[in-house]
Amino acid sequence: MKLAIIIILVAASVSFAQSNSQKAQIEVEVLAVLTRQSQDWNRGDVDGFMSGYWNSPDLVFASGDKVTKGWQATLDNYKKTYNSKAAMGTLSFTDLEINVLSREICVVVGSWSLKRESDNPKGKFTLIFRRFKEGWRIIHDHTS
Amino acid sequence: MKLAIIIILVAASVSFAQSNSQKAQIEVEVLAVLTRQSQDWNRGDVDGFMSGYWNSPDLVFASGDKVTKGWQATLDNYKKTYNSKAAMGTLSFTDLEINVLSREICVVVGSWSLKRESDNPKGKFTLIFRRFKEGWRIIHDHTS
Repeated sequence: MKLAIIIILVAASVSFAQSNSQKAQIEVEVLAVLTRQSQDWNRGDVDGFMSGYWNSPDLVFASGDKVTKGWQATLDNYKKTYNSKAAMGTLSFTDLEINVLSREICVVVGSWSLKRESDNPKGKFTLIFRRFKEGWRIIHDHTS
Repeated sequence: MKLAIIIILVAASVSFAQSNSQKAQIEVEVLAVLTRQSQDWNRGDVDGFMSGYWNSPDLVFASGDKVTKGWQATLDNYKKTYNSKAAMGTLSFTDLEINVLSREICVVVGSWSLKRESDNPKGKFTLIFRRFKEGWRIIHDHTS
């Protein structure tokens, strides 16, 4: 009986409990990925930017009326759309809200904007991050 | 020692393992929520449709360049935008892909379309579902 109670308690703690300090640590790690992504972008380094994404055929990138599957196809799209430093402009992420769903899953909603010579496109994104051995990576991006 | 091993095994199974039958069961439950949502919508029942969403001030609904927080504000937006049966049209969900991330979290990406007398708007959505005592509910919707 004691064993059963211990197992239930352990299972519950693994499954649900996130201390505030664990959540804060996850937020720091996820924000570091986003900060590095914007720095890479603003250096004109699309490959570096893409290192924030899960390098898998199962990566999902949804935008407008299109869903792209896979890391390579997402990279190809970025390189086609943003084919020069001028087209890339200066990227900013703002209004970030991080929702830690578990030790392994967290969701970020926020605003993106590009400052370019000719225009200033902007919108919202939802990013689902998953923790891997190598760190937190975006497994699903919905940008509008 | 045996106790430690049992605890580790239980923790690992709760945290990571999803049998195919568990995943299939989750997919069935989540699809049932979406099916009911489209049936409610197509009866002109926006309140019924909204029962698929988490009834919480922390519900997130992102669309275009706007993020709405909270169930009530999301309901208000729907009622304002779709203020008649004609405006609601006939809703279809297609191309659904369900990604079960854990026993409690799953992500659905898919297409939505409205068949109306005058037009046929469509787009993509990402829905993050969480399991609650009362069943699976959408906690985050990003529609484009």
